[in-house]
Amino acid sequence: MFARQIVARHRSRLLRVSFRAASIGSGGDGKATMQKTTPLHQHHQSSGEGSKDTVLSATAVIFGGSLLTYLITRKIKNDSEQIYAKEVSSLDEIRKAHDTVRKDLPEYTMDEVVQHNAPAAGIWVTYGIGVYDITSFVPKHPGSDKVMLAAGGAIDPFWHIFQQHNTKEVLTLLESYRIGNLRADDVVGTKDLHNPWAAEPKRHPILKAATLKPFNAEPPASVLVDSFLTPNDFFYVRNHLPVPEVDIKSYELELENEKSGKGKVIRFGDLLKYRKHTVTATIMCGGNRRSEMMEIKPIKGLPWGPSAVGNAQWSGARLCDVLRDMGVREGDEDGHVQFEGLDTDPTSTPYGASIPLAKAMDPRGDVILAYEMNGQPLNRDHGYPVRVIVPGVVGSRNVKWLGKIIVSRNESSSHWQQNDYKSFSPSTDWDTVDFKSAPAIQNMPITSAICTPASGETLTVQDGFVTVKGYAWSGGGSAVIRVDLTTDGGKTWFVANIDETEQGTGPGRHWSWSLWSAKIPVKPGQSGPIAIWSKAVDANYNTQPETFANIWNLRGVVGNAYSRVKVNIK
Amino acid sequence: MFARQIVARHRSRLLRVSFRAASIGSGGDGKATMQKTTPLHQHHQSSGEGSKDTVLSATAVIFGGSLLTYLITRKIKNDSEQIYAKEVSSLDEIRKAHDTVRKDLPEYTMDEVVQHNAPAAGIWVTYGIGVYDITSFVPKHPGSDKVMLAAGGAIDPFWHIFQQHNTKEVLTLLESYRIGNLRADDVVGTKDLHNPWAAEPKRHPILKAATLKPFNAEPPASVLVDSFLTPNDFFYVRNHLPVPEVDIKSYELELENEKSGKGKVIRFGDLLKYRKHTVTATIMCGGNRRSEMMEIKPIKGLPWGPSAVGNAQWSGARLCDVLRDMGVREGDEDGHVQFEGLDTDPTSTPYGASIPLAKAMDPRGDVILAYEMNGQPLNRDHGYPVRVIVPGVVGSRNVKWLGKIIVSRNESSSHWQQNDYKSFSPSTDWDTVDFKSAPAIQNMPITSAICTPASGETLTVQDGFVTVKGYAWSGGGSAVIRVDLTTDGGKTWFVANIDETEQGTGPGRHWSWSLWSAKIPVKPGQSGPIAIWSKAVDANYNTQPETFANIWNLRGVVGNAYSRVKVNIK
Repeated sequence: MFARQIVARHRSRLLRVSFRAASIGSGGDGKATMQKTTPLHQHHQSSGEGSKDTVLSATAVIFGGSLLTYLITRKIKNDSEQIYAKEVSSLDEIRKAHDTVRKDLPEYTMDEVVQHNAPAAGIWVTYGIGVYDITSFVPKHPGSDKVMLAAGGAIDPFWHIFQQHNTKEVLTLLESYRIGNLRADDVVGTKDLHNPWAAEPKRHPILKAATLKPFNAEPPASVLVDSFLTPNDFFYVRNHLPVPEVDIKSYELELENEKSGKGKVIRFGDLLKYRKHTVTATIMCGGNRRSEMMEIKPIKGLPWGPSAVGNAQWSGARLCDVLRDMGVREGDEDGHVQFEGLDTDPTSTPYGASIPLAKAMDPRGDVILAYEMNGQPLNRDHGYPVRVIVPGVVGSRNVKWLGKIIVSRNESSSHWQQNDYKSFSPSTDWDTVDFKSAPAIQNMPITSAICTPASGETLTVQDGFVTVKGYAWSGGGSAVIRVDLTTDGGKTWFVANIDETEQGTGPGRHWSWSLWSAKIPVKPGQSGPIAIWSKAVDANYNTQPETFANIWNLRGVVGNAYSRVKVNIK
Repeated sequence: MFARQIVARHRSRLLRVSFRAASIGSGGDGKATMQKTTPLHQHHQSSGEGSKDTVLSATAVIFGGSLLTYLITRKIKNDSEQIYAKEVSSLDEIRKAHDTVRKDLPEYTMDEVVQHNAPAAGIWVTYGIGVYDITSFVPKHPGSDKVMLAAGGAIDPFWHIFQQHNTKEVLTLLESYRIGNLRADDVVGTKDLHNPWAAEPKRHPILKAATLKPFNAEPPASVLVDSFLTPNDFFYVRNHLPVPEVDIKSYELELENEKSGKGKVIRFGDLLKYRKHTVTATIMCGGNRRSEMMEIKPIKGLPWGPSAVGNAQWSGARLCDVLRDMGVREGDEDGHVQFEGLDTDPTSTPYGASIPLAKAMDPRGDVILAYEMNGQPLNRDHGYPVRVIVPGVVGSRNVKWLGKIIVSRNESSSHWQQNDYKSFSPSTDWDTVDFKSAPAIQNMPITSAICTPASGETLTVQDGFVTVKGYAWSGGGSAVIRVDLTTDGGKTWFVANIDETEQGTGPGRHWSWSLWSAKIPVKPGQSGPIAIWSKAVDANYNTQPETFANIWNLRGVVGNAYSRVKVNIK
């Protein structure tokens, strides 16, 4: 809704304007300018509020985390583009630069900006009073299809939502693309925009936020090993967009079968009519432990510690039961099930993801449309009223605030399915990456993490031992069969005790983590620093790679190397 | 059959004998002897040929590979026990020692030996003219239940089959347990035993044998990458026992459902009535690449290279179809399916293994009772006329010469299921291992191997590149999504091209290997030694561990570390 309002406001300013000869600075190669003159153009205001309009998408910029990463990485490389980075030293300074009319640059009208919405004409965007030419940037970006939605519009409404752009680095980078000043009348303000963050839920203070808008937070690692089922309020939150406000009385879940052409809409009460299925499943963010991978080489992205993971008992209707009622048969495995959330970006594009239809239809896959978490209704951060739980599969496919389910021959076309949550060779960089070359992450690999002690702690030896605790988990339903620990770099390994895990599930249906502990002997009189490593082995006898160096990837996902903490023995 | 003959022969010598005071040397701790006298015993000959008799098992010794490993490892540690190791330098010498009456040791009758069939009385065995006390050894051995079958009997008939004992090390070790000489009349000869090896099939000379009896052999690695489907005659052979001779006309497959108490027998023709199901599946030995793991620390076992693996198109009846006819329902997942081969040891114990019933009943599991391999009837080495193919699962569960299928609440009790084909922490040794603590290997982990060039080769650079080829495979139906190669220790990684793999299988049903190749650039003028490493990534984003050091295990199984070859650039 608010996205349409923005566009209406925006376009209302596209009045008849005059065009002046402009000195066009290139933001891409840092080289100098060319002079050109174009005739006067006339534009008429569109029908305004609420009208569906192609300009809507043309004015949209999806400036997600990966794009920012790319922008920064690219620009820092090029000395000639660092002029602003050198000049500013604080967020305030660069904000001030953004708000300042650059007298060395020409003025443009929004009318002119709108014309630069394709590579042939150049790709321009505006932010505040600035006009920016991002033409040279677009073809190099992995999500260039998404970037093209930016062509010829203001990015302010987007950054109003994606508040993580509010950093010195990002604003400095943007400023380096500046080619002009936007006519004062055309400036798109954000003061009177609907505030999508106004209705965010309250969170427990134990959650350490990496970003507030959208809210992304994890608990301290030591909390994880306190209970086999993670308390709902302590469960990590990974939101991509503002939390939608859903009224359960009017909640509708749209079902569509592209294969048969059939569709229907069900309500919350309809879901309750299906047999209630409960599954204990660990959900882990694809970027869990990214901060450890970042120690090898920088990655721009949320610097998750080891706690972007939790384990809960989820209850709901089995997806296979719902799909069977949609005419999908169990042998009909070819294809995908797409999920759309009710959380949307300013273009009304919902968060989306998909899973293989085979996983959805497999009764052993235990995929459910969950409405309960640990016996309570889902809270708003975890998808109230309904989310999909895809056991063994990366968190990003466990779509929250479920609005639509589509049985399709194709994967979700969403940014998060196509151009994010994939991993590549360590030598693949943003210049060489081909997102189509890698499959979307589904099942997660084996991992373990030491949750206590934390790195840097000083430990007192008790009865000749130090105690180490942590979790281990493997995706795809594979049980953890062993956790090994070493304090001497692998010369001696101790087998941890599995304290708590899911019991009695069949092979390939072990969805929960295992909490483990170990008492590791310390030599009498030993003191000073020691490094403790953990590695887990799953039922397929897969184990963790030793270091992050050889699994480093530009998105910083599936980081499952040995867990290592350095502590002091007193 | 021949096992019973052996026992009959053996027992026919248990005539009335006199017992003399004996000087009993301990083989276990190397310490001296004690004198004891017992009264005269009388024994009557049993009914002889063909009679089922508990003595049958009491006289059996399963001296498999792992036991030997253990014996050797243990004894070498103890200086006082190495007297014979020091004295002999050749197989002939130690054989001669075995054949020599030790005048310093007492003579025993078989009657006396037979009484030493339990820990309380001491555990003796005979071999040729020697009597050996293995009491101290038994409790430490992982398969101590199996070792107890040895109590009080001759091991000659077993070693007649397990010819791998015919080494200097094994015979030296045995000789160190010598406590006496067997009365000449009681010696169990092997000359007139049925020769179970007489009917072994002919093999293609390309197969490099690790042992001839049983036949265990792999092709050169370079052959593997020549074809996506491994030719039947080039496919590695891993036999545990003599190849049985099966007449397809009289072939019977026994089916038993312990859960329902029902059973039946079907014939080859009955299998053909089921819909023929074809699956392309890679079969890999659990010990594949053991020779690389042995470089870290010795492991006694077949020193497999990287070619104990092959890929073939298998056709047969789906096991789930056959089991459904046995009254097993698809939801009835709890339990196991045991398989028994027609290959038997001298106690008539068949080779055996089991898989989870859930895997067997899952139509997506693609388990088949195969009668064809690459369009041809199975050859004798690969299980003629019927073997089970369990895609994604370690070779040892793909039981050949299938004689019996048992649906059970329990896993197979066979040695190979319980006390072999399991992996442990690198610090677990034969003194500390508890075989019950680890699950039997089923799905195999992700692996890759460089097949060409071989280590030590000198390569000529062509157009600035060297070409590397190999295979990659992951168990559990997980596709290989990427193979990375490096020639600079991981600083730079090159992504290999997947040349051939299975197409169009659903997620989690990718059973075949992937053959890959890469052209790796070589700097102009570069020459001298380089190390090439490969690592593969599967659809669960599991990858290989870097080195064998931290996955070393006492059985030398699931060795899936990076593949590394050292070559010279000319």
